[in-house]
Amino acid sequence: MHFTSETSSNGVIERTFTLDDVTGVLWSPESGPAGAPLVLAGHPGGLDKKAPGHVARAHSSVTIDGFHVVSIDAPGHGGRPRSAQDERWVAEFRRARAEGSPSFGHILADYCASVAERAVPEWQATIDAVLALPDIGAHVPIGYSGMSLAGAIGIPLAAVEPRITAARFGWLSEHDSLLAAAKQITIPIEYLLPLDDKEIPRGFGLELFDAFASADKVLHAFPGGHAQVPTDGRLDTRFFARHLGRAVGRPAA
Amino acid sequence: MHFTSETSSNGVIERTFTLDDVTGVLWSPESGPAGAPLVLAGHPGGLDKKAPGHVARAHSSVTIDGFHVVSIDAPGHGGRPRSAQDERWVAEFRRARAEGSPSFGHILADYCASVAERAVPEWQATIDAVLALPDIGAHVPIGYSGMSLAGAIGIPLAAVEPRITAARFGWLSEHDSLLAAAKQITIPIEYLLPLDDKEIPRGFGLELFDAFASADKVLHAFPGGHAQVPTDGRLDTRFFARHLGRAVGRPAA
Repeated sequence: MHFTSETSSNGVIERTFTLDDVTGVLWSPESGPAGAPLVLAGHPGGLDKKAPGHVARAHSSVTIDGFHVVSIDAPGHGGRPRSAQDERWVAEFRRARAEGSPSFGHILADYCASVAERAVPEWQATIDAVLALPDIGAHVPIGYSGMSLAGAIGIPLAAVEPRITAARFGWLSEHDSLLAAAKQITIPIEYLLPLDDKEIPRGFGLELFDAFASADKVLHAFPGGHAQVPTDGRLDTRFFARHLGRAVGRPAA
Repeated sequence: MHFTSETSSNGVIERTFTLDDVTGVLWSPESGPAGAPLVLAGHPGGLDKKAPGHVARAHSSVTIDGFHVVSIDAPGHGGRPRSAQDERWVAEFRRARAEGSPSFGHILADYCASVAERAVPEWQATIDAVLALPDIGAHVPIGYSGMSLAGAIGIPLAAVEPRITAARFGWLSEHDSLLAAAKQITIPIEYLLPLDDKEIPRGFGLELFDAFASADKVLHAFPGGHAQVPTDGRLDTRFFARHLGRAVGRPAA
């Protein structure tokens, strides 16, 4: 892990890094005790690790909960080159979406599954590298948060990665591999389901939620289309604060 | 409104009352500012205003949020006589449930709709009487909380009662009158849907949730059967604290 920049503002230290050919960013509290939990924050498809809403959520986790948050660009996103196969997929699902074709969801899900296969080992290497940092340490609790493409990556990741102990997903396109991975997952799950998403039928959201083997899981459903997350508190159960704990000595929200 | 007893414990004043032939209970903070919000807490069918879980939830609203909480026995519940027609209904749905008959849900829903018709004006009279108390006052924010039978009462109540400004429902048996009433409701709604309820198909829960005209609504779905509410925080969005406000000067949760 090679740090490429370090800045600090509003109580948050931001360090960008490279890890082999992966580009990423680590946000940390400017002050606080050792042992703070770590959230792995995946970005949705078409965006990257520095998308404004994504950064705002990360800052909020750092300043309110005292967490570290790490995000990496998915293959073909941010500064990372897109393969010829990915280019074809993206062109194909954009055309299907523009034409209102019912095959849109399946093309997108196939693309997501392919990106996920490549991204899972990258996230595992990222966890190894972040836990090796002296200001974080090998034993911090770890959560994963990711919607849409980042959910398609996070579900197979959480299925194989025992260091992740709580996860928040949502906006998933239908793919059998997600159901199979969800059946392997037993950690606490929070799942977000927008009910008016024209691109993703709500039935798959319920089927996927049912598939998680977790006893402690909850689905939050709400009006709205793709990627419109209500930020008025109605989805806020303090999920990571409850499951990862709060860094000792941080102020209460 | 005639108070029949007053006791106090753990910071909560409990006053039982009668209002015509309705029996009820009002829980209030032992100390705190005037103007605290009021929650109308309906009890599920087969229980009454003093059921232990129901009382525990009321105490928590009083001590954590500084709210007043009022509950009345539904017709035929608690100390209130059951009509001959209600006796027949209850016998019929108990038999249908014991036999595993698919008609169970509809018999229960018809019974709930009949109880609701009688209970709605009783709740309205209760609101009038509580708001006339000098330690409460005519202008406090009001929420309604009720599952199962208490949801079947609360939905038509909220449809006709503009003083209710936020409501929490769940566990509803299928009845067309509920869909019609939900379409009249525009206040913030939180809806609880257990996904393994053998007595109530989840499809109706989603249909009813869709019917609420509220822009600010959220459905929380979770594993479990009828009346098994997770109390581990996964459903806790501080709904009433967000929508009714917190009594000024109460300590934060």
